[in-house]
Amino acid sequence: MQLFYYKGIGRDTEVLELDKEQSRHMTKVLRKKIGDHVYITDGKGNLFDGTISLVTSNKCHIDLAFAKAYPKPSINLHIAIAPTKMNDRMEWFLEKATEMGIQKITPLLCDHSERKKINAARFEKIVVSAMQQSNQFHLPVITSLTSFQEFINEKKNGVKCIAHCEESQKSYIAENIDDGQDFTMIIGPEGDFSTREIEMAISKGFLPTSLGNKRLRTETAGVYTAAIFNSKIEVKNT
Amino acid sequence: MQLFYYKGIGRDTEVLELDKEQSRHMTKVLRKKIGDHVYITDGKGNLFDGTISLVTSNKCHIDLAFAKAYPKPSINLHIAIAPTKMNDRMEWFLEKATEMGIQKITPLLCDHSERKKINAARFEKIVVSAMQQSNQFHLPVITSLTSFQEFINEKKNGVKCIAHCEESQKSYIAENIDDGQDFTMIIGPEGDFSTREIEMAISKGFLPTSLGNKRLRTETAGVYTAAIFNSKIEVKNT
Repeated sequence: MQLFYYKGIGRDTEVLELDKEQSRHMTKVLRKKIGDHVYITDGKGNLFDGTISLVTSNKCHIDLAFAKAYPKPSINLHIAIAPTKMNDRMEWFLEKATEMGIQKITPLLCDHSERKKINAARFEKIVVSAMQQSNQFHLPVITSLTSFQEFINEKKNGVKCIAHCEESQKSYIAENIDDGQDFTMIIGPEGDFSTREIEMAISKGFLPTSLGNKRLRTETAGVYTAAIFNSKIEVKNT
Repeated sequence: MQLFYYKGIGRDTEVLELDKEQSRHMTKVLRKKIGDHVYITDGKGNLFDGTISLVTSNKCHIDLAFAKAYPKPSINLHIAIAPTKMNDRMEWFLEKATEMGIQKITPLLCDHSERKKINAARFEKIVVSAMQQSNQFHLPVITSLTSFQEFINEKKNGVKCIAHCEESQKSYIAENIDDGQDFTMIIGPEGDFSTREIEMAISKGFLPTSLGNKRLRTETAGVYTAAIFNSKIEVKNT
């Protein structure tokens, strides 16, 4: 069954009142009628059984029954990534990383960033759609566009890595992921990080990390990181 | 430096004569002039130093000097995948799998395939571009559209897997990849493989394989497979 996401509901919400646009989508686009069942999540791990109880020209109410709580993953993946020059490449990363179960994404403003503005509403829409499509119940958090310096100075739990392309001693990503600790990866723009940024990150405890001997595009590096992290967790759980 | 790909050259080729369209691209679009240097690969592991030696309104000649041979990978990844309903999703898979170093791709025609025709020339263009962009010298082979039954009856070396979504006993992909053997994975269309197909594949020695507990789209399953395979090889080489 199709999964819907709405903000601002909780386990004690009895009736969800959709706004005008949501009502239009539910009743006109999807042609749901009174009595129809839908699955709904709050993006915080809760799944609800919904039954449509009222439909007017611009309103739609859904009776909610709490169905199941999906626990938060015990360890988290956080990728900070410079938005690509071409928007569709960043959006593809957002979709794929969400499908693979990422918890947090930070759009990163770097010395060599070509894209210095993001459309946060559009980013949110993409991760919501990917969460629903992949049948997940935790919505990844997308933070606001953050400068490189601010990001590396934030406190973070677990292992922190920087995937840069300069020739230097690095360890391969899979060796840096510890399946008992949170994992943060920073990924630079098309022109890579500046030498200054690499040095700053290393001085703040970020491990210089290789994603293998292929030259990956920015968004591919992001998806690759999500896949390898996901794999470590899967192997642990099998 | 930019990498170009041309078919039909070999280590003993002294002069490469571009055709009209290639000449136009090299001299008009990229504005290369006599004496300019370019890197050229034959997509078979050979890299050439090229020097532009003749430019007319519709001709361009390049003097070639063999520079380096990149060995074939010792083990190969072959993904057979049902082309997605939306072309751009399949094209993303082709690009990303090429960046991650795949050797062979078979577009697969399945019981539930929604897309039954492919544009082979467009597919080729995408993998060429991804190979050049990611600085690789082996062009992945894209076979013609092949029926599921024909594919599972072909002889294949190494480990063969099927990633289907039906509930059954499966092992996780990373456990099935042996870093000393070729690896073949078949990935179904949006509506998954049919039960008949799953049974046929298993009877032919394909191992039922899980890509983790997330529901991945077809093209994501393909990229995920390429990433996990690549990771196994990288870990082996570090």
